[in-house]
Amino acid sequence: MQLSSLHNLYVEELKDIRDAEQQILKALPKMAQAASSPDLKKAFEGHLEQSREHLSRLDRIFKELGEGKNGTTCEAMAGLVKEGDEVIKAMGDAMVKDAALIAAAQRVEHYEMAVYGTVRTFARELGYDEAADLLQKTLDEEGAADKKLTKIAEGGLLSTGINQKAK
Amino acid sequence: MQLSSLHNLYVEELKDIRDAEQQILKALPKMAQAASSPDLKKAFEGHLEQSREHLSRLDRIFKELGEGKNGTTCEAMAGLVKEGDEVIKAMGDAMVKDAALIAAAQRVEHYEMAVYGTVRTFARELGYDEAADLLQKTLDEEGAADKKLTKIAEGGLLSTGINQKAK
Repeated sequence: MQLSSLHNLYVEELKDIRDAEQQILKALPKMAQAASSPDLKKAFEGHLEQSREHLSRLDRIFKELGEGKNGTTCEAMAGLVKEGDEVIKAMGDAMVKDAALIAAAQRVEHYEMAVYGTVRTFARELGYDEAADLLQKTLDEEGAADKKLTKIAEGGLLSTGINQKAK
Repeated sequence: MQLSSLHNLYVEELKDIRDAEQQILKALPKMAQAASSPDLKKAFEGHLEQSREHLSRLDRIFKELGEGKNGTTCEAMAGLVKEGDEVIKAMGDAMVKDAALIAAAQRVEHYEMAVYGTVRTFARELGYDEAADLLQKTLDEEGAADKKLTKIAEGGLLSTGINQKAK
């Protein structure tokens, strides 16, 4: 890793989150399949659609920058996906498994929030205002996805109250 | 992984975050050493102290539960630490490296926020109110640590304005 300028770091971080999004696109259908609650299945499927849009926003940003977008493996997301896989394969009560799937997915959301917050700030500092707006939009959507999972787990308006049932 | 009850999942998640805290305790001194900004060094050193307290809170919770606390490796934190190590070893401009260290640390904070949010909710659902209060306290401190890093990066009251300098 060469950290010669903020631009250079910005590109590295964008590559990291792009690889992370690609790993998420592979993981989400498996998580949706493993979920029992229809609300949770729907949330994962909805987030899959959203993740495709997030990836296409990143591709627009790379095109504007004229920079290569490949060659990075996001090790952190690889670890998160590995933890998610353990939950998918786990035996036990369906509702407890749903609670565990939500816990795994919220770690993924939080990782994405951290990285999108970073690259949004870098884009603003570097004067890439259009990219910063796109990244902010994705950041807002990741935050909303996280809140939706909390609602499903804790039992809100749209909820099946998974934590209550899993007791 | 056996997901037979919410209690069982709660213990699994506590083991995960306990292992994560131990990995963080090893990583933070290296991050403090790699940082150039005195504010950032101080932030990492302060968070090291805090992480020791977070670990001791988890040990109190395990003692109350009468459950074993070992035997889990947090794969996600292993990935996050690996990414942090790459930044520590990276060559380049000192201010850009500081910005990269902050980006790595904020991913760690976000991981912790996700997990502490989950276990706090589980503790409440299970009626472990004292544990829930302790976990909420840690969650608040992780959130504050994350905000402090944003301040150092973006240039607030206590800041050295790392992103500005790294341009």
